[in-house]
Amino acid sequence: MRAEMAEQPAVLERLLARADDVRVALDGPRPAGVAIVARGSSDHAAIYGRYLLELVTGRPVALAAPSLHTRYGARTDMTGWLVIAVSQSGETPEVVDVAGRLRAGGGRVVAVTNGAGSPLAEAADVVLALEAGEERAVPATKTYTAQLGAFALLATALGSPPWPDLGGVPAAVAAALEDPAPADALAERWTGADGLLVAARGFLYAAALEAALKVRETALVPAQGFSTADLLHGPIAAVEPGAPALLLRADGPTARDVDEAAGALRDRGADVRSLPLPDGVPEALLPFPAAIRAQQLALGLALRRGLDPDAPAGLQKVTPTR
Amino acid sequence: MRAEMAEQPAVLERLLARADDVRVALDGPRPAGVAIVARGSSDHAAIYGRYLLELVTGRPVALAAPSLHTRYGARTDMTGWLVIAVSQSGETPEVVDVAGRLRAGGGRVVAVTNGAGSPLAEAADVVLALEAGEERAVPATKTYTAQLGAFALLATALGSPPWPDLGGVPAAVAAALEDPAPADALAERWTGADGLLVAARGFLYAAALEAALKVRETALVPAQGFSTADLLHGPIAAVEPGAPALLLRADGPTARDVDEAAGALRDRGADVRSLPLPDGVPEALLPFPAAIRAQQLALGLALRRGLDPDAPAGLQKVTPTR
Repeated sequence: MRAEMAEQPAVLERLLARADDVRVALDGPRPAGVAIVARGSSDHAAIYGRYLLELVTGRPVALAAPSLHTRYGARTDMTGWLVIAVSQSGETPEVVDVAGRLRAGGGRVVAVTNGAGSPLAEAADVVLALEAGEERAVPATKTYTAQLGAFALLATALGSPPWPDLGGVPAAVAAALEDPAPADALAERWTGADGLLVAARGFLYAAALEAALKVRETALVPAQGFSTADLLHGPIAAVEPGAPALLLRADGPTARDVDEAAGALRDRGADVRSLPLPDGVPEALLPFPAAIRAQQLALGLALRRGLDPDAPAGLQKVTPTR
Repeated sequence: MRAEMAEQPAVLERLLARADDVRVALDGPRPAGVAIVARGSSDHAAIYGRYLLELVTGRPVALAAPSLHTRYGARTDMTGWLVIAVSQSGETPEVVDVAGRLRAGGGRVVAVTNGAGSPLAEAADVVLALEAGEERAVPATKTYTAQLGAFALLATALGSPPWPDLGGVPAAVAAALEDPAPADALAERWTGADGLLVAARGFLYAAALEAALKVRETALVPAQGFSTADLLHGPIAAVEPGAPALLLRADGPTARDVDEAAGALRDRGADVRSLPLPDGVPEALLPFPAAIRAQQLALGLALRRGLDPDAPAGLQKVTPTR
């Protein structure tokens, strides 16, 4: 896991250099809408993409409900829609199945996958190959940030993204990797935690969900991610004094929301901490360094808890959800 | 809470009798798509609606990302779209704000609310008033099942729903209310639990999320809801021997998925239980009796844990998320 984490700046450097290719491959009229199909950590990249793509296309973006298609036989008219199907391996049967059905319904399917010759790639109109190299550790690291990169490329191809350029992303990721101390300090503080709450809003919301998933599957700590807005709508009632709470915060339009949640959590006695994110990186690109912080926390917790971060109990690399 | 739970059959009886009115109010061309705006437990009714409405309209359904509009100024073209905004009180500023913006973007807004003269009702093209009477307990019960009822009415108005009629719903809800023993037995078994996992798939997925929220906010047990498909993609790794796990299961196309998850949870030593749902009720209507089971479990746990279910610590009835 640690070795694959270290590859991320190089993987992103290669991937983000392909902006022109992606633009050419996606050339065409503005889509009527965008649907995204994903599961597991890919689903968190999809949530990031959901925000980005609605912002740049000005059209509604929907996350597909797979069972609607595979279990209930929905026949959704996708004429004029772009369908983005995300699977690290490209072999999750359910994602392949849903992508095929939405294509049959008239959608134009883009496969975002590390599996260039995979069934998902075969079923798509356009393949955005991550070319991240083989990922052997069960927790997705370099393929996850590469999926974020793919959505950033798609946003660049489909409209005017909320950043001047993507050139600074590999360096921001490298800088976070070279500075493991903040996450290590939290891992030390929370080694014995029997739960972890992670919250954020807006572009960092997906990062909070992914941080919780990474901690759950790597360090086996029951962690739960929330939007700060949802947190205040009920779940905060169950927060007990001393409960570990991690907030991801960006300067900008969501800062006040996160500060408000921090205050409410502190009022309940929670152990509220945050992890530093770089200044000068546009908010919409902070999910990249935030993913590194989450990986560092998950790795640090796993090692301190005597677990093998490469193969947490009971997980397979490709989950054969049908 | 108990008194408001008992009102549900009568509330649903009145609401579901208004199918013709809803059909007339929604008359018009088939929408290009449907967007749903909601927070908290209303968001779980929205997920139920998401499945139903995509199935009956054959058009994509999206759950709105509120911060995209209120924090990042997205201007989404909603021409031809139906926008369904759900808020018990009709006063959650964020839901009102997003509904107004999507209406300005060309969407036709339907307010689903118990607040007939509320700001949300004022901002909408069509009001589907729940008429559930005042709800005083913090945990939403009768307004939640009424929201499910509203989506069932919308599905009936917009296409061919996956049930012959809605006539049996109030009786199914009444029968579940008259049979609290199964949920009470679980509440007794899990009184001291420090966590609860709830999982389901398809139409019952939203019911699993809502059951977890109800238990969290009413009984202050950290509970987490999952789709069985997502559960197998990572979170199951953190399940420890003896961990309480509640599965909601329908006969039909998702039964195998739930059985598979039950097997995987049992392999990890989890204490896997289910709550009975009635035979003879179409799968797409089981979320109604499932909501009753969840309320009974949350109430039973709260009372056994010495809590006041009407006013769990630190929650307000209207959450002023901006």
